[in-house]
Amino acid sequence: MPINIIIAGPRGKMGSEAVQMVSNEESFTLVACIDRKNGGKALKDLEPFPGLDVPIFEDPEQCFQTVDADVFIDLTVPDVGFEHTKLALLYDIHPVVGTSGFSSEQVAALEDLSVTHGTGCIIAPNFAVGAVLMMQFAKTAAKYLPDVEIIEKHHDQKLDAPSGTAVKTANMIQETRENKQQGHPDEKEILDGARGAQIEGVHIHSVRLPGLVAHQEVLFGGPGQTLTIKHDSYNRASFMEGVKLSVHKVMGLNKLVYGLENILE
Amino acid sequence: MPINIIIAGPRGKMGSEAVQMVSNEESFTLVACIDRKNGGKALKDLEPFPGLDVPIFEDPEQCFQTVDADVFIDLTVPDVGFEHTKLALLYDIHPVVGTSGFSSEQVAALEDLSVTHGTGCIIAPNFAVGAVLMMQFAKTAAKYLPDVEIIEKHHDQKLDAPSGTAVKTANMIQETRENKQQGHPDEKEILDGARGAQIEGVHIHSVRLPGLVAHQEVLFGGPGQTLTIKHDSYNRASFMEGVKLSVHKVMGLNKLVYGLENILE
Amino acid sequence: MPINIIIAGPRGKMGSEAVQMVSNEESFTLVACIDRKNGGKALKDLEPFPGLDVPIFEDPEQCFQTVDADVFIDLTVPDVGFEHTKLALLYDIHPVVGTSGFSSEQVAALEDLSVTHGTGCIIAPNFAVGAVLMMQFAKTAAKYLPDVEIIEKHHDQKLDAPSGTAVKTANMIQETRENKQQGHPDEKEILDGARGAQIEGVHIHSVRLPGLVAHQEVLFGGPGQTLTIKHDSYNRASFMEGVKLSVHKVMGLNKLVYGLENILE
Amino acid sequence: MPINIIIAGPRGKMGSEAVQMVSNEESFTLVACIDRKNGGKALKDLEPFPGLDVPIFEDPEQCFQTVDADVFIDLTVPDVGFEHTKLALLYDIHPVVGTSGFSSEQVAALEDLSVTHGTGCIIAPNFAVGAVLMMQFAKTAAKYLPDVEIIEKHHDQKLDAPSGTAVKTANMIQETRENKQQGHPDEKEILDGARGAQIEGVHIHSVRLPGLVAHQEVLFGGPGQTLTIKHDSYNRASFMEGVKLSVHKVMGLNKLVYGLENILE
Repeated sequence: MPINIIIAGPRGKMGSEAVQMVSNEESFTLVACIDRKNGGKALKDLEPFPGLDVPIFEDPEQCFQTVDADVFIDLTVPDVGFEHTKLALLYDIHPVVGTSGFSSEQVAALEDLSVTHGTGCIIAPNFAVGAVLMMQFAKTAAKYLPDVEIIEKHHDQKLDAPSGTAVKTANMIQETRENKQQGHPDEKEILDGARGAQIEGVHIHSVRLPGLVAHQEVLFGGPGQTLTIKHDSYNRASFMEGVKLSVHKVMGLNKLVYGLENILE
Repeated sequence: MPINIIIAGPRGKMGSEAVQMVSNEESFTLVACIDRKNGGKALKDLEPFPGLDVPIFEDPEQCFQTVDADVFIDLTVPDVGFEHTKLALLYDIHPVVGTSGFSSEQVAALEDLSVTHGTGCIIAPNFAVGAVLMMQFAKTAAKYLPDVEIIEKHHDQKLDAPSGTAVKTANMIQETRENKQQGHPDEKEILDGARGAQIEGVHIHSVRLPGLVAHQEVLFGGPGQTLTIKHDSYNRASFMEGVKLSVHKVMGLNKLVYGLENILE
Repeated sequence: MPINIIIAGPRGKMGSEAVQMVSNEESFTLVACIDRKNGGKALKDLEPFPGLDVPIFEDPEQCFQTVDADVFIDLTVPDVGFEHTKLALLYDIHPVVGTSGFSSEQVAALEDLSVTHGTGCIIAPNFAVGAVLMMQFAKTAAKYLPDVEIIEKHHDQKLDAPSGTAVKTANMIQETRENKQQGHPDEKEILDGARGAQIEGVHIHSVRLPGLVAHQEVLFGGPGQTLTIKHDSYNRASFMEGVKLSVHKVMGLNKLVYGLENILE
Repeated sequence: MPINIIIAGPRGKMGSEAVQMVSNEESFTLVACIDRKNGGKALKDLEPFPGLDVPIFEDPEQCFQTVDADVFIDLTVPDVGFEHTKLALLYDIHPVVGTSGFSSEQVAALEDLSVTHGTGCIIAPNFAVGAVLMMQFAKTAAKYLPDVEIIEKHHDQKLDAPSGTAVKTANMIQETRENKQQGHPDEKEILDGARGAQIEGVHIHSVRLPGLVAHQEVLFGGPGQTLTIKHDSYNRASFMEGVKLSVHKVMGLNKLVYGLENILE
């Protein structure tokens, strides 16, 4: 039996990818969308979705009441997403939410609701399975090979350096590795910045060039060997594998799980 | 308190690296060596070990009886190593053995002895921590990103292709990934061999060039992303991290563990 | 003074990229397009080109007669492109043509016309500057480091292996390197295909995975060192750098040049 | 006919590699060595050279007078090497000198002597053919793809960052590329050093880890593509290819050439 799915935010970048993915997946059925406009129309009335005869609701409660759904995917903004997710749990529809913007109070509130209703819920700041595996593997490798540096490479329109993923990776490494000063104690920079940024001794290097998309390698060294874990992300399709996996997993959960890494065994 | 260690095979390539490593490690003390010649001499009498005042025994039983040791490291050949390991277990000395040459009967016999005596024992076909982590990570990643190819690169004096590590990696991947045909169903080789060798659908490519040492990358692809796990081994020092780790771990074991991957959590 | 440009094939994949590029480049002015339909309309009447008030001609001769142009860019199909290019040369407009499909007779005929009129012309089977540089560098490196293998990686919808670029690279390497058998003379494949395809002793390995776009590395080995030249192509924008460069170069030529490599010093 | 060679500095790291290389090369004959001690002995009397019946001279002039040689390889220190090289030129023996330590006055003096005698001479600060090709290719690529960053990776015992090769590469790139500011004009470092060091707009990143030897990649980006040129050096054998090439080339020269790049066409 296919899994019936409601998507909120179908016109956004992630949302429209999710509409495509759910439509193309045999084991999924897209039964409705929630949009802050276009209520009463069908997806096929909107330009990018020819042929998709799926009703659009502006009122989430009306949607959850009317439509028989198993999973609710929210790809809107945090404040809206929080209200949607609460409602979905009240109606025993399993939420899969892609945001890093919830406050810890909001997460706690959803956790309570999820447990009370025995309805699983997944909240994931990053749905790219490869990126999450990279961070998990890096955390494990740092136990055995504590000398590590991170090189992240992005297109030259990115403003901030280092990237959020690089910072998160460095923080995860800190959880497992022994505290240590890397490099030679007497090393010196002839030119400022050569050795990169540092987060508790982990050096991070940020490359920005046209042509690049989003790439990161975590490089571990030990006597006579190096181990490299590298993720290359080419487009938003990379997130859909994680959404798909979450839809399958959330059906078997009876509580809230935060972070894709916690559903990857 | 330092860990007292006996090494068998001190003049071999791995053995002499192990002598250096144990001598340099503060928490280890090298208390004796077992060698099929040079009995009665000390290590310092042999050319490469100036200054090491460590007795050499030709008879392993005499060595285990005489010397007070915690751990026995065997880096000889399988048949000799099997006899050594049995004896060490009888004398409640924890064996750490680097060989892939034991028969399953031999492993089973040592397993029995280990449990009976409650004395931990580690047998590892590969002590390179980075290589073992690479294989473990590959096995995990294949669950979520089942499209995978292996590229291994070695110096051009290597005779066999693909390498043993590549074959082992492909086999480990088979344990977790769904059975699948990779590549386009209609793909064709204009030149024979272009798409490499195959082990149950996993393609393996072997590069041989002067200058290279021993390198492998496992490349996973999914929509919009790739994940690469790569190990570079430059010299035999890479194995000593695994020996060191095994010495520490074996002290806390009361049974036999086969494979370094099983002591890496 | 800006360079006035006519583009043939504005609705094709490459052609529409070229329209964008020429429109965005300050030193270029798009003065007309040639299309086998839509004659008499303007580009702005076609869906993807809002705001571009550029006339469309169905008859190339009428276009070249009417419009005052410096350069003609042809991104149609070989047979049509050949007729277009001949005409452009007759009207002393410098052609830049992206095709690998001309016969040697056709190229010779255009060469004659180009020299007779003293009007430069560039024909390029590959406009990706990075790919052409990779092949040039590989050809040079093979003189000094004759041991070389090629790894090319593409998305898994590609049917043929190895890629045309890999074959071309191997052929270019043959022009400079000493004839040699690579690898150990006694090497053997335990699994068929492990050592890849071969072109006169150069091994080629083809990887196919979802997520990949179009990538190639040429790997040279010598005692104690390796040299790698790698090109990653992410989308068609990569070809536009070569078109841009060709437009600038063709203005200073008075004969035909075949291959982008011959305008890269 | 083999080329007769004298080597100065046979007991040094580079010198002893050169002795091995010359002895193993069929087209070369090692006819003498110059050493500041061991005069009157033969190489076979020194520990690492069993079987090499090659006379050792302490006085270079006596060596050049006595021995019939075509090429003189100097792998000593700059001041000694300068005197040796002058003498070799006086005796019409072609010098091949591996040092970056000569002053410009010293180079000019040797240049004069070389031209006067019509005796070719090669002075090379870096004999690793792969590294020199990398720098040459980078200089060429920067003309067409002016956005470029350098990542150099070395073992963690290296004190200075960035490496001399990285600085030299950045300087060579400046000779050909248009002056430009890379990255987004509004980019900012959230953590100091993330974007690396800079030499006239070229960003340089220095990685230091145990296990690494000496590696550099030069990464070029343009719309939709990247081009990477990478050199990996594993041991000193990498320098011997350049020495070998220089010995062959110097025989055909009648003046001084500075830098291996100038004998690679």
